[in-house]
Parts: sequence; C-alpha cells; structure tokens
Amino acid sequence: MLERIRIVLIGTSHPGNIGGTARAMHNMGLADLALVAPRCEPLTADTVSRASGADHIVHGAQTVETLEQAASDCTLVVGASARSRTLPWPMITPRALADRLPTELASSEARVALVFGREDSGLSNAELQRCHAHVHIPTNPDFSSLNLAAAVQVLAYECRQAWLAQQEMPGEADMAPAQPLASHQELENYFEHLERTLVAIGFHDPATPRQLMARLRRFTLRARPERMELNILRGILTATEQHAERRD
Amino acid sequence: MLERIRIVLIGTSHPGNIGGTARAMHNMGLADLALVAPRCEPLTADTVSRASGADHIVHGAQTVETLEQAASDCTLVVGASARSRTLPWPMITPRALADRLPTELASSEARVALVFGREDSGLSNAELQRCHAHVHIPTNPDFSSLNLAAAVQVLAYECRQAWLAQQEMPGEADMAPAQPLASHQELENYFEHLERTLVAIGFHDPATPRQLMARLRRFTLRARPERMELNILRGILTATEQHAERRD
Repeated sequence: MLERIRIVLIGTSHPGNIGGTARAMHNMGLADLALVAPRCEPLTADTVSRASGADHIVHGAQTVETLEQAASDCTLVVGASARSRTLPWPMITPRALADRLPTELASSEARVALVFGREDSGLSNAELQRCHAHVHIPTNPDFSSLNLAAAVQVLAYECRQAWLAQQEMPGEADMAPAQPLASHQELENYFEHLERTLVAIGFHDPATPRQLMARLRRFTLRARPERMELNILRGILTATEQHAERRD
Repeated sequence: MLERIRIVLIGTSHPGNIGGTARAMHNMGLADLALVAPRCEPLTADTVSRASGADHIVHGAQTVETLEQAASDCTLVVGASARSRTLPWPMITPRALADRLPTELASSEARVALVFGREDSGLSNAELQRCHAHVHIPTNPDFSSLNLAAAVQVLAYECRQAWLAQQEMPGEADMAPAQPLASHQELENYFEHLERTLVAIGFHDPATPRQLMARLRRFTLRARPERMELNILRGILTATEQHAERRD
C-alpha cells in the first residue's frame, strides 16, 4: 500500500526541505517522490544533510513541470491546504484521509498523490481545484504555517499508522470499488472536453468564468468517477458538440 | 490541557533542531519547553531561522542540568525511545498516549513531560528508567531514526488531535457540503431533463437503454449534488436542447 503513495512537492525553494521530506518519507516507508518545478537545486549539501541517509529518495524522484504530469496516473489527488478559500472544496483531516487509504489503494492500479505547495504561498487555486479533496493539518490558529517537511512528516506518519492498522486487521480490501476509477489525466481530458463543449453551446464564456468550471470540477471530483462513467460523459459531450457544429 | 504538556530535550547538539522543535510546538499549541544540558548554544541564527517566528518558545525555555529538574513537577513522564532495551518498560504508541492525555491532565495540577534524547544516542538507560512509560513512533525498521524536530512534531500533533477530540470540535464534518443539497424531487426533475436532452441530441434511445440512465444516476447521486450545482447542470441541458431544437 505505502509504495503506491506519492509525495508531490510543488515549487519548493529550500533544498533542506526536500532532504527533510525524503527523511520523513523513508522513516515512514514511503518512497515515491515527485518534484514539480522546484525553485531550487534539489540535490545540494543541505539536501543530503537533512536527508540523513535518505537521499536516494531524492535521486529517484521524478522532476516535472506541472501537477498534471506528476499526478497523471493517480486515482486520488489530495492537496495539503489551509482552510478553503473562495470556493469551498471537500476538506478532510489527516486521520480521516489515512483511514480511507486502505480502501482507496485496494486495487493494484490505484495511486494516491499527496500534494504540498510552496513554502511561502502554498498551492495555487488552479492546483487546489485539480485535487479531489484538501487535507488540513489542524494547527494553532495563531501560528498555522507548518514547515514543509514537518507537514510531510505528519501525513506520512498517518499513512504508516493506517498501513499498520491494516496489517493487524486484514480483509478490508473487500470495500474496493468494483470498477477502475478514472485517472487524474483522464479527468483533466474530460474537463477540457467539457469546457470546449460548453463554449460551443454558448453556455460558458471563458472571459467571464463565474467559477463555472471550478463548480463543475468540484461536483465531478466528489463523485470519484469510474473510467466507464467518464467515457459515457465524454460520449455525451461529443454528441452535443456535433449538434453545436452542425448548427453554426 | 495543551499548556500543561512540557517538551523536554536532553543534550541537543543542533540549534536548528531546537528551532524546529519550537516551531512544531507552537504550530500545535504547545508552549512549555525545557532544555536539559544542551550540547550547543540554544539560541543561534539557525534556531531563529528554523523556528520561523516561534523563537519566543526558546526564549521562554528553562535550561537545567538534569531530567529530574526539568520534570520535577510532572505527574506523567514519557520518554521517546526506540524499542525497549535491556529491561523492557511499558511501551505506548503516540496515539495511545494522546488518548490518555485528557484523563492524565484532568486535574489542573497535573503536568505531562514528553522527553526526547540526543540526536546521536537518544536517552540513556538511566533517563529511560526515570520515565513512567516509553513512547515509540512506529517507523520503517530499515530507517528508524527520526529527526528530533520531526519526532516532536509527530507527538505534538497527536497531543493536539487529542485536545481537539476533547473539544469535540466539529472538524469531523469533513466532507459535508456547506450548501443545501438537492431534494429528491429536484433530482428526479433533473434526470427527466437529462434523459430528454440525451434523446434530443441522439445519444440515447429509450428503446435500447443499455443501462445508460442507471449509470448516470448512480454517478450523480454518489456526488450528493447541491441545489446550486443541479441548477448549473440544468442550465447546461437547456443550452444543449436549444442547439438540438434549432437544428431539427
């Protein structure tokens, strides 16, 4: 289970935090690290020092340009976030997230991405809206900003707790969804198709978006679409587009 | 409750770890720090940098020579430790410890000390034997040594979780939508509208339904749509229908 949990760091500025993240991951039995557009050299003396023997995790990390690339094969994408902003998104506690992991990862094709933002500004709204849910680590409201590696430590610890609990209590794999879920990439392709179609039928004007796409994303992601369901929805979009084209 | 939990660091070598500990404590609402025979200057530029705004915790820390002095007024003393050594001692997991805290700290005179050892060698046997119990953070057996501040972070996080649970904070409202949900009737109206539209665009033939509507129902109901979301979806259907009608 733990090998199918990916830690995604976006726009990290301090190599020490990458090293600290690697150490926290290896301590808790996680190994899959993705760096999205790091704003520093990932492998420096600071990285190795803070990794304290876990720098192979950084050597093995994939470095990519976007969250889409980092999470393309993931069936659940959860962004670490403070309280939700303009558009409330499903919020989950670290413990509730961990409790769900054995079910989420029951299928061998399932992958979970835990996404962490920049030290100074966290995740952007666009990034947050690409997540199925947001996880908020409860903190002192007067001093809520956790160190990046410390936040990874807390979530990685909860992942390991969930895994240990599962070892003691097998048989939970029964709750696995029957059908393969859509991957992050398939979902993004769908949202692109949806937006194109809404423009074609004159329902959506990207110049005055009124949070339309965000609302549709939130609704769709909440349902955790299966691949087959997404195929049906895309079929509907294609039929709709054909009507729109013929008319114009 | 949290104000009566003391973090005790014994023989710390790296000021950065003292700063990281202060940050982790303040993040989780702990404030009481004791330094026992530190092996470094506790307040350096590294401390302040890693504390990231929580260095007042270090300024307010008591510095003493022995664990006895640091924990003299504590009613429960728990030492962070790897698996027990020569003489097995009561071992407790971080979560079990946290679950006990509200009871342990029910009296206003009660105090708990959580004791952390040296970066290189942990707590001595003499120190471990001064503890009521030992707490072990479950780790990867191949890489079990946590960073000192990361270990404090995990235990401080569990303390805060226990405190929040005691407050019966409504943080468990997790995935609950903030907006009014669509009623059964509104959903049924939506499904009727959806089917009509799918027929109009030639995607659906009620004579050969292929479970299409059932699949779309299951998907939609799973998301527990809000009323406002359903209004958006109906707006899309209306726009789609208009295109279909004009064409026919």
